[in-house]
Amino acid sequence: MGKMNIGLFLLALAASRPANAQNTEATIRLVFDHELTQGKCYDALRQLTQIGPRVTGSPGAAQAVKWGATYMKSLSFDTVFLQPVMVPRWTRGEPEEARVMVGKKSLEVNVCALGGSVGTGPGGTKAHVVEVYSLDTLASLGASKLSGKIVFFNRPMNARVIDTFSAYGGAVDQRVQGASEAAKYGAVGVVIRSMASNIDDFPHTGMMKYENDRKIPAVAISTADAEMLSSKLREDANLEFYFRTTCETLPDVLSHNVVGQITGKRAPLEFIVVGGHLDAWDLGDGAHDDGAGCVQAMDALNTLKAIGYQPAHSLRVVFFMNEENGGRGGNKYAEMALANGEKHLAAIESDRGGFVPRGFTMTADQIITSKVRSWEPLFAPYGLHDFDQAGGGADIEPLQKLGVPVMELLPDSQRYFNYHHTSEDKFEYVDPRELELGAASMATMVYLLDSYFSD
Amino acid sequence: MGKMNIGLFLLALAASRPANAQNTEATIRLVFDHELTQGKCYDALRQLTQIGPRVTGSPGAAQAVKWGATYMKSLSFDTVFLQPVMVPRWTRGEPEEARVMVGKKSLEVNVCALGGSVGTGPGGTKAHVVEVYSLDTLASLGASKLSGKIVFFNRPMNARVIDTFSAYGGAVDQRVQGASEAAKYGAVGVVIRSMASNIDDFPHTGMMKYENDRKIPAVAISTADAEMLSSKLREDANLEFYFRTTCETLPDVLSHNVVGQITGKRAPLEFIVVGGHLDAWDLGDGAHDDGAGCVQAMDALNTLKAIGYQPAHSLRVVFFMNEENGGRGGNKYAEMALANGEKHLAAIESDRGGFVPRGFTMTADQIITSKVRSWEPLFAPYGLHDFDQAGGGADIEPLQKLGVPVMELLPDSQRYFNYHHTSEDKFEYVDPRELELGAASMATMVYLLDSYFSD
Repeated sequence: MGKMNIGLFLLALAASRPANAQNTEATIRLVFDHELTQGKCYDALRQLTQIGPRVTGSPGAAQAVKWGATYMKSLSFDTVFLQPVMVPRWTRGEPEEARVMVGKKSLEVNVCALGGSVGTGPGGTKAHVVEVYSLDTLASLGASKLSGKIVFFNRPMNARVIDTFSAYGGAVDQRVQGASEAAKYGAVGVVIRSMASNIDDFPHTGMMKYENDRKIPAVAISTADAEMLSSKLREDANLEFYFRTTCETLPDVLSHNVVGQITGKRAPLEFIVVGGHLDAWDLGDGAHDDGAGCVQAMDALNTLKAIGYQPAHSLRVVFFMNEENGGRGGNKYAEMALANGEKHLAAIESDRGGFVPRGFTMTADQIITSKVRSWEPLFAPYGLHDFDQAGGGADIEPLQKLGVPVMELLPDSQRYFNYHHTSEDKFEYVDPRELELGAASMATMVYLLDSYFSD
Repeated sequence: MGKMNIGLFLLALAASRPANAQNTEATIRLVFDHELTQGKCYDALRQLTQIGPRVTGSPGAAQAVKWGATYMKSLSFDTVFLQPVMVPRWTRGEPEEARVMVGKKSLEVNVCALGGSVGTGPGGTKAHVVEVYSLDTLASLGASKLSGKIVFFNRPMNARVIDTFSAYGGAVDQRVQGASEAAKYGAVGVVIRSMASNIDDFPHTGMMKYENDRKIPAVAISTADAEMLSSKLREDANLEFYFRTTCETLPDVLSHNVVGQITGKRAPLEFIVVGGHLDAWDLGDGAHDDGAGCVQAMDALNTLKAIGYQPAHSLRVVFFMNEENGGRGGNKYAEMALANGEKHLAAIESDRGGFVPRGFTMTADQIITSKVRSWEPLFAPYGLHDFDQAGGGADIEPLQKLGVPVMELLPDSQRYFNYHHTSEDKFEYVDPRELELGAASMATMVYLLDSYFSD
């Protein structure tokens, strides 16, 4: 849209920390102006998503690490380095198959294996189906009703909950623990209704865990197919469900976090971290989850650099590896911070999609929390109003456990679970302005924190 | 997603106006619960957009009128009626053509005629191009530079402006007045950079006006082609631009506003109006502009009815005709209100797309404005925070001139001008939850106003 000439304004402000509220507002205006006219995050996301699937431990993930380091070096950060970390390696294998078999009819179903699941073996799994709405139901049904069966977990995300992440939190136990719980009663497999806000044809993958050695295969089916299966079960409780998956867990492999740094002038050994996670589920290209977070974090620091801001403390962007199925990258980063005696002042993640920003979540002590909330009027002109919720992000939770104040960018959540962990999580569904506004919001928060910790 | 059993709660609340703040909050919760689980607006929008293009005066617009009346009757509103209004009739004619001709090369351009423009005639218009960024520039160039030329208006929407409607307002003079101004200096045609937030291949149509008898043809080209044309002009100022349009203005035809009413129990001759406009530009299916507003307004009243709310005043939904190129429907509605001595307490429009709601604009006296702003805590749990901006909507401006307080639903604006007036304004780009949250917000505002005016 044409580069904006902000040179004169820059000359006045560059290299100076703001001395008063007016300067603070002017600096924030510069941040947003720069991001909305010369921001690089959308183009960076295009490059990242063109790599293709980058599930942890895959060739795509390795390529994404290389791309990230190369890109950060092109931004002339003071330091760019890789942080080695051993990560799990799960592969989806051949395209999954599933069918509802009613009498002589066979209805194809949109299906995907859950991350971490064992496969069915080449012959697949076929059994009668027991539909349940909660894990609690299993105990009352018991082995007599469940042994040899496929358990179908069909509790929807609650549409009445405005924050879709809360609705997700209220349903995802089925996906994470369903297989382990069902296996206790002799079930031979589990089918999960996809964690989605809408009714459509796309199955949503995501992490599941085995809590014991009875490992039964687990798949998700689309919400439309979950409605169909439930309807067919009401007509014929004896129908059978067949699915075939060849996914498997391979030995751990070496991967990396990617870290870029702008070194602080006054306290170079004190750090403010921004980040997202570089790995992504393999069905789409991980544009919202969490390519968006990575490029926003990177561009937040680049924008501060571009407007001539010289931070007091060192600012780091981290592309964490393995958020989706292990969190090894987040753990490694905190472990190294502790081992190296690095003082972390704050950490900010973006891992809720590249949608229009509405605020930040925060878990910190009362003093910092109050301070951050006092900045709400600075963010209001840019549409951010929500600073009331607790929370950071999964990758910075290990830092939080070390006592570091954590925050997460809070974008609007309404569309996230249309795309989350599906083939539809792709670049074309990210809007450039929405992405840029998030990056500018993160840059602003870093700038305010850096200034605050200097006082 | 399963129907929610709110029967017991309804029994307690139905047919009673809220006696206190707790009841008010509970009623609003019911409104949102109903809309998010049993709302009809998304399905209604699907039906409306399947009719196809419905530019004012077209067969599609006439079909939309019939559909609207039939749908409202199916909702068992107390009254449904059509309000006759004579409207302009402009037709696009054959698909437009345009080319940039550089030496022997000819580059095809994505183009559309502006609404209301005359056509070029079958031979098209070909001329050298003068690129300008503002209407003011024309006078300094004068007839010596502009006579016989095509004027290319290429000022972008300002990306730094957070509210894209403000950015649109800062650029749209080129589209509305460009042809009239350029014709004063002998120009033979105008080419407008599309009013878009992004760079893409879709030309955006929209209304233009002739202020005198020198009518020259006007087209919009996509933002990507505007960038291309500007770049080519820097290389070769003598390139020629060719375009061919066969659009024309036909005699006025009879059309209608569609009005549905739930009659008030206490003051049936006092009205609160909600509405959107039924006509839409012809390139897409008018899903965001303004199918969304129509179905939200209709479902707002239907939801209040469905939860058992009995209004004190009469509630009306109006599908206004001809917002895009004349505003005849809005004028007619106000004219009839005046002629019939109908007292209107308030009017609320939705005409900013079916995106996630952020608040309401409002133009009213100080007492009402303060009262509405005092309700902000009631809306905050649903993500609405912005009640500070002035404004109603174009269709209710005639009511505003009669002294009626006006408001407009204020959705997030970031994506609107990706779709606005293009072939991409279609059903698939409307998110059901975002649409429903807007409808529930309108229902809530109607409920609060109805209660307030009863006190």
